[in-house]
Amino acid sequence: MDRPAAGTRATVLTGGGGGARLADGIAAASNNATIIVNTGDDAEIYGLWVSPDVDTVMYTLADVIDPQAGWGRRDETYATQTALAELGEDAWFTLGDRDLATHITRTRRLRAGHSLTRVTADLCEAMGLGARVLPMSDEPVSTRLDTEHGGMAFQEYFVRRKHRDRVQAITFDGIDAARPAPGVVEAISDSDAVIFGPSNPFVSIGPILAVPGMREALQQSPARRIAVSPIIGGAALKGPAADMLDSLGHEVSSLGVAKLYRGLIDVFVIDNRDAAAAADIEALGMDVRVTDTMIAQKPDRLRLAGELLAL
Amino acid sequence: MDRPAAGTRATVLTGGGGGARLADGIAAASNNATIIVNTGDDAEIYGLWVSPDVDTVMYTLADVIDPQAGWGRRDETYATQTALAELGEDAWFTLGDRDLATHITRTRRLRAGHSLTRVTADLCEAMGLGARVLPMSDEPVSTRLDTEHGGMAFQEYFVRRKHRDRVQAITFDGIDAARPAPGVVEAISDSDAVIFGPSNPFVSIGPILAVPGMREALQQSPARRIAVSPIIGGAALKGPAADMLDSLGHEVSSLGVAKLYRGLIDVFVIDNRDAAAAADIEALGMDVRVTDTMIAQKPDRLRLAGELLAL
Repeated sequence: MDRPAAGTRATVLTGGGGGARLADGIAAASNNATIIVNTGDDAEIYGLWVSPDVDTVMYTLADVIDPQAGWGRRDETYATQTALAELGEDAWFTLGDRDLATHITRTRRLRAGHSLTRVTADLCEAMGLGARVLPMSDEPVSTRLDTEHGGMAFQEYFVRRKHRDRVQAITFDGIDAARPAPGVVEAISDSDAVIFGPSNPFVSIGPILAVPGMREALQQSPARRIAVSPIIGGAALKGPAADMLDSLGHEVSSLGVAKLYRGLIDVFVIDNRDAAAAADIEALGMDVRVTDTMIAQKPDRLRLAGELLAL
Repeated sequence: MDRPAAGTRATVLTGGGGGARLADGIAAASNNATIIVNTGDDAEIYGLWVSPDVDTVMYTLADVIDPQAGWGRRDETYATQTALAELGEDAWFTLGDRDLATHITRTRRLRAGHSLTRVTADLCEAMGLGARVLPMSDEPVSTRLDTEHGGMAFQEYFVRRKHRDRVQAITFDGIDAARPAPGVVEAISDSDAVIFGPSNPFVSIGPILAVPGMREALQQSPARRIAVSPIIGGAALKGPAADMLDSLGHEVSSLGVAKLYRGLIDVFVIDNRDAAAAADIEALGMDVRVTDTMIAQKPDRLRLAGELLAL
């Protein structure tokens, strides 16, 4: 299935989680893949710069991800985290010992003046990755959520408070000063396929689309632009996408997500369970592809990647 | 032995190693102990601020030190260090996972504008230490060594090159701008005893004495000023003290060390094995105390501390 797709130039927009798994499939199916990753949930933790979605993508592609958690490294230990708590650090954000090496290296190099793009490229090379992984921007962007319990940064909402607060509005601090990272616009312009991963449209794909110049690049791209729905049967596989659709006034369905991407994509890919929504989505002016979008396992990722690249 | 000494106000000047062990004894024998620690070998490792002697003192007093290595924490693991090497970091300076928590916390707080004195005090509190541990200065001082193989920073000389280079000169970068840390001069002025630990006179005690104002504070202190020789039977228990005495033109003996401290101390404490040197040292204008200065084990530290505080 992946043989004819190998030469396809493919670009994936993604957060962590399901989008990272799809990126893994695309990276395996295409020898010319670029993964553009959300950095809106980057945070300084214990004084170290953590880029959770970039790390999840790198670890997934390097096959060192913790498959149960969906983030962090497999076979991880937590000696430093335990010692940090003993020293009085507010240890609400768990970082494993191996994972810490990534954050320590990244932080050292960012402080030395290297860009996040360059640091990410070197980390990918050290991990032996073939695909290019690009942060959406080298400028810091911080996703903030207005909730019924006040405003908070993304990790505060997502990790510390376990995304239990109803989200009323989302803003991206720093977005006006952000530019697409070097290579991002070129990847979108020069690809055969641009694929929106099945990631949260508000806090994973949303920040990427909000970087000035990104929408224009997508609108002008000659690539086949494809989005994979993160909603299956009216629910998100994981995370707050369904809750956010609801609280932000959208229909909690693939149709609800498709409406958010209107004008930016050519094809919307939905799960077999949502086949009944195909006609309504097509009425938005996009093609629909109905398939099995569950890609927890590697063979499923390769299958879906092959299907997408064949579009 | 330690009962009558408990009320004695004692200040110890020290590096890591043997000086830290003596500081441990003094801290156990006196309920009013201040440990002033060399920071000339502080270094940025992987972008983290490491204060090796401060850490060795804290870990020794907290009884979490690795007794074999004499530095770092007991029952340590090295998952982060291994992962850092895999990511391409030049991993010549070994930091354990638990130990890393100290450096991460310190670095975060220094970058947030807290002084090394304050960060050290909070670390000591978190470790439950009764004694006050003070860095010699809040300003960065960097010990540099001119050797037959060129100039190098202390950790380069000591750790990376295993102190194999013959040292021709020693300088302390930043020393002119350094001031004694808050509490340092007061501790020296208000103590009953000021004790130079059996530390390297050039790179452990030397930087402390080189901080502007320190020699004057010692000269003017009403305290009984005592130094414990780091040389036993013509050799250093560990480290390059004997080599440095030789290469810098001093006699490799307790007498050679005593000459370095002339005018700053009242009593020089030598090991039984060096008893024959007592007369020559007394001729320098200081008292000599001959005793067993081997203090690897806690009871020996308490015994020697009691003897010193009884002086």
